[in-house]
Amino acid sequence: MAESPVRRTGGRSAQVRATVLNAGLAELVDVGFHALSLEGIAKRAGVNKTTLYRRWGTREALMLDAVRERAFTKVPIPDTGTLRDDLVELVRAAIANLQTPEVQAMVRVGISLAPHESSVATMVSSFWTERLAVDGVIVERAIDRGEIAPVDPGSVIEAVLGPPYFRLLITGRPVTDDFLVATVDLVLSGLRS
Amino acid sequence: MAESPVRRTGGRSAQVRATVLNAGLAELVDVGFHALSLEGIAKRAGVNKTTLYRRWGTREALMLDAVRERAFTKVPIPDTGTLRDDLVELVRAAIANLQTPEVQAMVRVGISLAPHESSVATMVSSFWTERLAVDGVIVERAIDRGEIAPVDPGSVIEAVLGPPYFRLLITGRPVTDDFLVATVDLVLSGLRS
Repeated sequence: MAESPVRRTGGRSAQVRATVLNAGLAELVDVGFHALSLEGIAKRAGVNKTTLYRRWGTREALMLDAVRERAFTKVPIPDTGTLRDDLVELVRAAIANLQTPEVQAMVRVGISLAPHESSVATMVSSFWTERLAVDGVIVERAIDRGEIAPVDPGSVIEAVLGPPYFRLLITGRPVTDDFLVATVDLVLSGLRS
Repeated sequence: MAESPVRRTGGRSAQVRATVLNAGLAELVDVGFHALSLEGIAKRAGVNKTTLYRRWGTREALMLDAVRERAFTKVPIPDTGTLRDDLVELVRAAIANLQTPEVQAMVRVGISLAPHESSVATMVSSFWTERLAVDGVIVERAIDRGEIAPVDPGSVIEAVLGPPYFRLLITGRPVTDDFLVATVDLVLSGLRS
């Protein structure tokens, strides 16, 4: 990679980061987690591998950064003013994101390897601890508005994401938009009764 | 394996079947799905491999039989007289079963390989099509008793199993008995409101 004065600016650095993270996800889809390496990702991104070793250290750290970034971009936290609309938007975006080849590959890797590789287990649990807290803001705002009684925000997120994840990864039944909306409505009716 | 007159009776045949299915699950935990073979299972079970080829044909058919049998034995369909108690018993048994090393290994194999191997995808979908129908009887009886309005029974089963599966396989948060009961109660409140 050619050195240039621009390289040190935030813009250039952010661009390199985005290129590397996208290369990580694309490489995972192509070669699988077993064969995934910082060297292979560097080659794909057209970046010197020492940059990756210096910045991320391990492939697990890089992939965690990649899925966090993807979720941050593709699954923003809605603020429509009602809990129902916020949850419907969140679930729609989360499930659309899960259905991309890159994210689906990451999730399936996490599920199959977490029991055997502690670095993968740590990656998965770091992602979800943060993500449930971030998503939970929707529920906290609804509690503050008096829409629902106080409840563990993370559990509400798990209640609306659990059934579509279960369908997509386990039973294989079709995940339609009607199903997503019905799941949110069932949880909301439960919370309000 | 020595031939004997007893071999042809149902009792002996059922015993061989149980030995082979248990050997299949134990072998999966030990060697992983990649290295799993009818030959290895036969050796472990102390049964001639031609018996396995004749009876099951493929390792996928044998493993499907093994998880069906395990679920049939360990997750019986309760009939307590109320939907709440039936669902709580079902979810407790299903999650206890999922937490055994054998079943957890099968589920993780299904999730990681189903997108790439159609024989695995067929195995998973056969299992769940049958299992949701079997479990759904609980919901059908509740509808007949007038406990809840008509609803797709499979969706109710997915609504109560989805969140604990999500915790166990995805977020890694603790699956306590309180959480299982709260999940059932949330779904029931939703169905009744």
